[in-house]
Amino acid sequence: MSFDHLRSPVAFLETMLGRLPHEDVLREYEAWWYEGQRVSANIDRAGTPWLKMFDRFGERIDEVLYPPEYWTMLQKGYEAGAVWRVFEEDSILPFSLLGYVTAFHDPGLGCPHTVSLSTAIPLEKYGTEELKEAYLPQLLKREGMPWQGATWMTEVKGGSDLGGAVETAAIPSEDHWLLTGDKYFASNVGAELAVVAARPEGSPMNVRGLALFLLPKYRRDGSLNYTVRRLKDKTGTRSVPTGEVELRESEAYLLGKEEHGVYLILEVLNVSRVANSVGCVALTQRAVADAVDFAEKRGAFGRQILEHPLLRSQIDERVAGLRRAFALAWEAVKLLDEVWRESYPYSERYHLFRLVAHLAKYWTAEMAALTAKWAIEVYGGMGVLEEFSVERWLREAMVLAIWEGTSHRHILDGLEAMERKGAHKLLFRHLSGLAKEEELSKMASRVEAHLGLSEEKREGSAEPLFWDLAKFTADCLARALGGRQPSSR
Amino acid sequence: MSFDHLRSPVAFLETMLGRLPHEDVLREYEAWWYEGQRVSANIDRAGTPWLKMFDRFGERIDEVLYPPEYWTMLQKGYEAGAVWRVFEEDSILPFSLLGYVTAFHDPGLGCPHTVSLSTAIPLEKYGTEELKEAYLPQLLKREGMPWQGATWMTEVKGGSDLGGAVETAAIPSEDHWLLTGDKYFASNVGAELAVVAARPEGSPMNVRGLALFLLPKYRRDGSLNYTVRRLKDKTGTRSVPTGEVELRESEAYLLGKEEHGVYLILEVLNVSRVANSVGCVALTQRAVADAVDFAEKRGAFGRQILEHPLLRSQIDERVAGLRRAFALAWEAVKLLDEVWRESYPYSERYHLFRLVAHLAKYWTAEMAALTAKWAIEVYGGMGVLEEFSVERWLREAMVLAIWEGTSHRHILDGLEAMERKGAHKLLFRHLSGLAKEEELSKMASRVEAHLGLSEEKREGSAEPLFWDLAKFTADCLARALGGRQPSSR
Amino acid sequence: MSFDHLRSPVAFLETMLGRLPHEDVLREYEAWWYEGQRVSANIDRAGTPWLKMFDRFGERIDEVLYPPEYWTMLQKGYEAGAVWRVFEEDSILPFSLLGYVTAFHDPGLGCPHTVSLSTAIPLEKYGTEELKEAYLPQLLKREGMPWQGATWMTEVKGGSDLGGAVETAAIPSEDHWLLTGDKYFASNVGAELAVVAARPEGSPMNVRGLALFLLPKYRRDGSLNYTVRRLKDKTGTRSVPTGEVELRESEAYLLGKEEHGVYLILEVLNVSRVANSVGCVALTQRAVADAVDFAEKRGAFGRQILEHPLLRSQIDERVAGLRRAFALAWEAVKLLDEVWRESYPYSERYHLFRLVAHLAKYWTAEMAALTAKWAIEVYGGMGVLEEFSVERWLREAMVLAIWEGTSHRHILDGLEAMERKGAHKLLFRHLSGLAKEEELSKMASRVEAHLGLSEEKREGSAEPLFWDLAKFTADCLARALGGRQPSSR
Amino acid sequence: MSFDHLRSPVAFLETMLGRLPHEDVLREYEAWWYEGQRVSANIDRAGTPWLKMFDRFGERIDEVLYPPEYWTMLQKGYEAGAVWRVFEEDSILPFSLLGYVTAFHDPGLGCPHTVSLSTAIPLEKYGTEELKEAYLPQLLKREGMPWQGATWMTEVKGGSDLGGAVETAAIPSEDHWLLTGDKYFASNVGAELAVVAARPEGSPMNVRGLALFLLPKYRRDGSLNYTVRRLKDKTGTRSVPTGEVELRESEAYLLGKEEHGVYLILEVLNVSRVANSVGCVALTQRAVADAVDFAEKRGAFGRQILEHPLLRSQIDERVAGLRRAFALAWEAVKLLDEVWRESYPYSERYHLFRLVAHLAKYWTAEMAALTAKWAIEVYGGMGVLEEFSVERWLREAMVLAIWEGTSHRHILDGLEAMERKGAHKLLFRHLSGLAKEEELSKMASRVEAHLGLSEEKREGSAEPLFWDLAKFTADCLARALGGRQPSSR
Repeated sequence: MSFDHLRSPVAFLETMLGRLPHEDVLREYEAWWYEGQRVSANIDRAGTPWLKMFDRFGERIDEVLYPPEYWTMLQKGYEAGAVWRVFEEDSILPFSLLGYVTAFHDPGLGCPHTVSLSTAIPLEKYGTEELKEAYLPQLLKREGMPWQGATWMTEVKGGSDLGGAVETAAIPSEDHWLLTGDKYFASNVGAELAVVAARPEGSPMNVRGLALFLLPKYRRDGSLNYTVRRLKDKTGTRSVPTGEVELRESEAYLLGKEEHGVYLILEVLNVSRVANSVGCVALTQRAVADAVDFAEKRGAFGRQILEHPLLRSQIDERVAGLRRAFALAWEAVKLLDEVWRESYPYSERYHLFRLVAHLAKYWTAEMAALTAKWAIEVYGGMGVLEEFSVERWLREAMVLAIWEGTSHRHILDGLEAMERKGAHKLLFRHLSGLAKEEELSKMASRVEAHLGLSEEKREGSAEPLFWDLAKFTADCLARALGGRQPSSR
Repeated sequence: MSFDHLRSPVAFLETMLGRLPHEDVLREYEAWWYEGQRVSANIDRAGTPWLKMFDRFGERIDEVLYPPEYWTMLQKGYEAGAVWRVFEEDSILPFSLLGYVTAFHDPGLGCPHTVSLSTAIPLEKYGTEELKEAYLPQLLKREGMPWQGATWMTEVKGGSDLGGAVETAAIPSEDHWLLTGDKYFASNVGAELAVVAARPEGSPMNVRGLALFLLPKYRRDGSLNYTVRRLKDKTGTRSVPTGEVELRESEAYLLGKEEHGVYLILEVLNVSRVANSVGCVALTQRAVADAVDFAEKRGAFGRQILEHPLLRSQIDERVAGLRRAFALAWEAVKLLDEVWRESYPYSERYHLFRLVAHLAKYWTAEMAALTAKWAIEVYGGMGVLEEFSVERWLREAMVLAIWEGTSHRHILDGLEAMERKGAHKLLFRHLSGLAKEEELSKMASRVEAHLGLSEEKREGSAEPLFWDLAKFTADCLARALGGRQPSSR
Repeated sequence: MSFDHLRSPVAFLETMLGRLPHEDVLREYEAWWYEGQRVSANIDRAGTPWLKMFDRFGERIDEVLYPPEYWTMLQKGYEAGAVWRVFEEDSILPFSLLGYVTAFHDPGLGCPHTVSLSTAIPLEKYGTEELKEAYLPQLLKREGMPWQGATWMTEVKGGSDLGGAVETAAIPSEDHWLLTGDKYFASNVGAELAVVAARPEGSPMNVRGLALFLLPKYRRDGSLNYTVRRLKDKTGTRSVPTGEVELRESEAYLLGKEEHGVYLILEVLNVSRVANSVGCVALTQRAVADAVDFAEKRGAFGRQILEHPLLRSQIDERVAGLRRAFALAWEAVKLLDEVWRESYPYSERYHLFRLVAHLAKYWTAEMAALTAKWAIEVYGGMGVLEEFSVERWLREAMVLAIWEGTSHRHILDGLEAMERKGAHKLLFRHLSGLAKEEELSKMASRVEAHLGLSEEKREGSAEPLFWDLAKFTADCLARALGGRQPSSR
Repeated sequence: MSFDHLRSPVAFLETMLGRLPHEDVLREYEAWWYEGQRVSANIDRAGTPWLKMFDRFGERIDEVLYPPEYWTMLQKGYEAGAVWRVFEEDSILPFSLLGYVTAFHDPGLGCPHTVSLSTAIPLEKYGTEELKEAYLPQLLKREGMPWQGATWMTEVKGGSDLGGAVETAAIPSEDHWLLTGDKYFASNVGAELAVVAARPEGSPMNVRGLALFLLPKYRRDGSLNYTVRRLKDKTGTRSVPTGEVELRESEAYLLGKEEHGVYLILEVLNVSRVANSVGCVALTQRAVADAVDFAEKRGAFGRQILEHPLLRSQIDERVAGLRRAFALAWEAVKLLDEVWRESYPYSERYHLFRLVAHLAKYWTAEMAALTAKWAIEVYGGMGVLEEFSVERWLREAMVLAIWEGTSHRHILDGLEAMERKGAHKLLFRHLSGLAKEEELSKMASRVEAHLGLSEEKREGSAEPLFWDLAKFTADCLARALGGRQPSSR
């Protein structure tokens, strides 16, 4: 087998998907990364960016200081269409294809693009005409740097149980709301707009008491609408600044109906979870590509280490895993593309999407972390030196595995989608024809049996089930994509 | 089940081994770490230490600059007896017990202690009387800072295939040798003594052409015997300085016979590989302990996350894995304790040890890395912030997985020990009585069948076999230690 | 001339002052610095310390993370008596002598000791019995780490014009006050107690509207009384953490009478300005000592560079400048020792002290910076490398020149003391007998003439006058100390 | 007086020099710095760049890793003509004008341009036709990145006494030479070509035994011609990588005649010393501009601090000093422009140039450092925070004061030029008409008297004389430029 298609995200996408829309845009964007990867490596090496809180005259400014070239790198993806093409074409496919190319080179940089889209979508779906007029064109600029968006949910008590942890309070004031509270993980903290979860005063202290608000960076009078307490020193994804935000009677606008807040929040997360899955696959490809590249050139015992049977069989297995992971993630993309315009109440297709997205977010993150770990080992001693980029992929993968929900979260939410919405039934119907009937029904029975267990057991033993279900689904889907695999050597 | 025994390495050792020799020494050393862990965290946070190459008058000095408290931390383990007790008691047990405590708090710090012992042992076994008189007492000092040792084998072409990669040349000169070459991964680079692999001129260009030399830091005339090109920027194990060493006609002393060099090198590696296994288990315990500690205090959905069935079952599984990993590593310790004084030609016991050591080095490192990854996920977003120590354990684990031989190396060397020495037969005999007869013979047949495959297949499919054999062995051994597990709550 | 007395702060103090009180304590403290200087160098190299804002469970803690050895270093000075001996002996001399030794090795470390004393003094002079009982013993602990104090005046609009820049508001509440505002340069930010300037509500918007408050780190209910926004990244004096403090209804206690606030604030500054002068002299000595040390060992053109006439004459001049600077600073110490217990209204002696303190703060800081610059040049290329400590002294000197008031501030305040209080007349009377009558009256006439100029001219041309007056005063005083200079070679 | 002309280097140049040649090029280059200054600030903040010694396969590569944008910044000056225009126009004026603009924004970045020119000049003057053909076009490329040059003289024993300190040995080998030795301060270490001082074997052990060689980065066989031991951690001028270079039988080409080496070396230094003077003046302007800018916007006591008479008079004095420093440095430029093509034996004009260059290098560096120190003080507390750029100028100034010769060196060499060549007489003749006759002859007599002192006294008291002579000369020259000063307000 030739490995050439592993070295290029666009080539791999073609292997899996056939002829790509906007192939020229993708190729041009990919070509830019020849130069961009040095920028990205520099950003990673420089560590946590620096927050300039005050100017020299004591005015609070809260600027995120990156090397200037960071902004060039970031802008490339926006200009290529990571956000604006979604509305131009009424499809999230261009976002996902571009995001794959981005994440192959810099998994963290996918985040700004994603949260900008996750801001534009609810604004477009639920914003008033005035809001849309004021802000949408800024987010959808095609040339130069557009405004960026951000999605700030998590507070210091944690992100898994938003209903229990969000304490930011919203108080109505004339035509808008005033928000007060602290967001503890605020990604893309320099954005001009953010959508944030907050609790209108008087709402219940659970997840149904949350609403979604649009929060501009500046107040109407031009002053800062909130302050950034500090930037977080993350081990990975340094290409996106994550900060702690202090909202103090910050001006905001309600999106949709108060009582539907939890649905809107989930719709926002849908986009970022799918994007995270796509990023994990791209990162997996990158780790495999780097390992293969090293193995081709490094020698031991008189031949390149690629020729050693043990390493060779590991590579074959990793490539197969990559293909499976891609198939699963891309199914989530395709389903999201069908349902992202839905609003509550949702269709069955939406519930199927939800389950596939949980499986994909969980399993692709596992693949990414384990593959990155393996790539480090292929590099041997070189692998743990900061000067060679391969150790970076594991740091990036560990963040991807956690943000947008840890594995625990996705396993349990996936379980819930099966229990409450029968999403597993929708899934098996969806897979029908992609596996032998008997395999499908065997897996279906196993799931049903599991759902019949006591809560303690059902949850306690959920991980092996979820892993196997994810792998099974991925396997089915990969076979469906499988005809166009590059021929063996 | 109570988790208290997980929070203390000594308590866990007692759970597994019963009454410990030198319990008072161990407890005192452990108690010191209450203070020491802040030092260790500071060293890790400070990153790669700094090499002061010249004094201000331009004299080359090559000093490794750590915060002064580093040296205090390092000295504690030496004084407790990490090295000197081995010779005092003619046993490596005290080294292993102390090393377990060290690695629970700082896995990288185990390295200086280990390589000092790995220097003292060949010096004591193979050194001339003059060499021993000159250097052994320095290594075995009981108070204050002893001299340190180091073991430098690897060159830039890699560490797996020493026979092909070591290019350092040795030329005889009067009563000593002059070494010229570059060592690329020279751990504990500030040591006063090192044992190094080099190739006496005229020797064959393979592993049998290597000999082992003792290399002091200073020449007889007091000048530096070699220079340090730089320190390596490792992602983990920052408590041991790893450098690149430039030998230029550096004075050295042959240990043992030239033609036995490869055996002596392997004897040196035996010690460090077993120590690495012990360190991996201690790190595994630490990761579990930190995760449990967090889970007890963090809440979500109205209860501590420890009470969530999914997390709870993961913890149970991790604790079981820890116990198995400990049993396997400790078997390697006990076997090494029987054979470390052997010289070529070796006993059957030595070959049994070799296989167990390969299994242990491989499998405990996998456990450590996977457990550290999981602990990060338990912490959620906190897990990937550098300010909370848990992300450190994965960085440390990745180094432990690679130095002293990657998984590839140990799988293939283990395979060779089975093929050439029938080590698997010795193993199954050793395990007899610890598993049901039928399980033993089933595993034995599987191994035999595997050994009968073509080389391509035998190596290509070796990993699942080796994993299963390691887990099987660990399981047998864990049951034998198992009676004294803390009772369930 | 031998230079040996330049290498030791205690030896130099003896040269200038004769037999020292507590000589044994001083010598013991100095001896400790043989080890301590490596700690200090490490702290400097590590850069801005790290603020740990939250624990891993999301509780705000605001801990300043230094290497543990920092606290050992800091504690040494407290235990030697930098604070407690002042009250034990009713004299600031022990503080000044110990401070000289500290600053020779680490000018920034003098700050924590100083501001702790500057907290204890107003507490002792103006605190209620309950306050004194609660807090004084903590500040005056003789063993272990005492509580530390801090003096926080400056806000973001600047420190020169406190009357215009302090916006922190104080509101009475039962038996205490609640303070709200931001302190922008809060030195020794981890201290357990601070004295802070704030404006009681309703007070005038000028310097007379300020009052002085005692502010504990924790509220009565045990929670944090204020938060630290961040630590400042200073180029020097990294041995004291300087932060930005956010007071939000922080509990505080009024010291003295509200309407006397400005006097109390000035009394606090008196101590730190004198300490700053002493520190500048010690730093000057250190820079000279390092330069001499280098010049003795570095060779060029066939001899040590010390023997080159140009360098030799520069050294002689620097030593003479050092002696003058010491004489001036020590006069400020002696005068402060006479007046530090005074309260408003003050004696003439107090006004004399004020002028001498302004001259000393201004001129010793100039000496320190210029001498540090020169020492770097003596080192040549080595001087601008961070690995050799000499460039540090200039960074330290630049901070010393600015905090406790820039040169502008001291020149203008000195001018005011002459205009309003006739302090120059007190000075010339004080110097009588230390210079020829005609020199004294020539300088006196020049000052009088200057005071007669228009405000524009008086201030515009004040610097040369102030420089000359400082040098003249220093010269007179140095002659008075001069008999015990080490003999020429 | 308006300060607008201080904010722009081109505007200030026009004020001093009238209509500028290539004004459009200068303005365009200056305009680029609006963006470039953020790049420069980022490079400074990032600290010492990183040396990538090996690629991941263990091949030595010695690449200097800067953020990619560094190379863009560097290239701008080359493209504008910092080097190629000198040969195009047979004049160093364009180099000096562009260098002024560069140094206003980044004094360290002037170094690469300067040493590239200092490489091209001797190559053009003394290289064989083959050498010139091979290398000159590379250095003089007008588009894209040209090859860079470097000038490596200093070894670890110091740079003042090259005759005593250079130990690099040169051995002839066919048509070239082989150099072996270590260069301790090798600026612009990534350059493709360097001119280096070395001692042909058999030459005398003094300055007359040195010769000048051209050293390419790569050997004829394509391998590295030398290795870089490490990059130096300088406190300033981080925009030029300075390294330690290990020459080991490195291929080099003799420039000119062996016995004229010392003259060629001095000719190389002539260029860099004049460039250093120009850079110091630009830095002085920048420090004044930043101080004024701050003073205009910062308020205290109810008005902007610029309006305070004391600060106002300081600013006036600094501006006057700036003008004087410029006049002195520019005289050195103009004289160099007359003599840079001379070879030994030299004209009287050359000796006049030498003295003016010594005065300029010495005095402009003093001005730069003292002005940068003052600017920090104007900023008050903001001045010592790394986040505001003003502290940077002092760090830069300290390097400029030292490289290309410390003040000691220039004072003593200037003295020698007066003693041996009667350069003072040439100077006074040159200044005739620019000062009153009686002032000129008073200064001339003072110099003559000084030259009549014993060596001990002549050197020991040389600094005040040299300072006064520099200031006197600068004053005369400034008056000659003076008519076009912006009118007072």
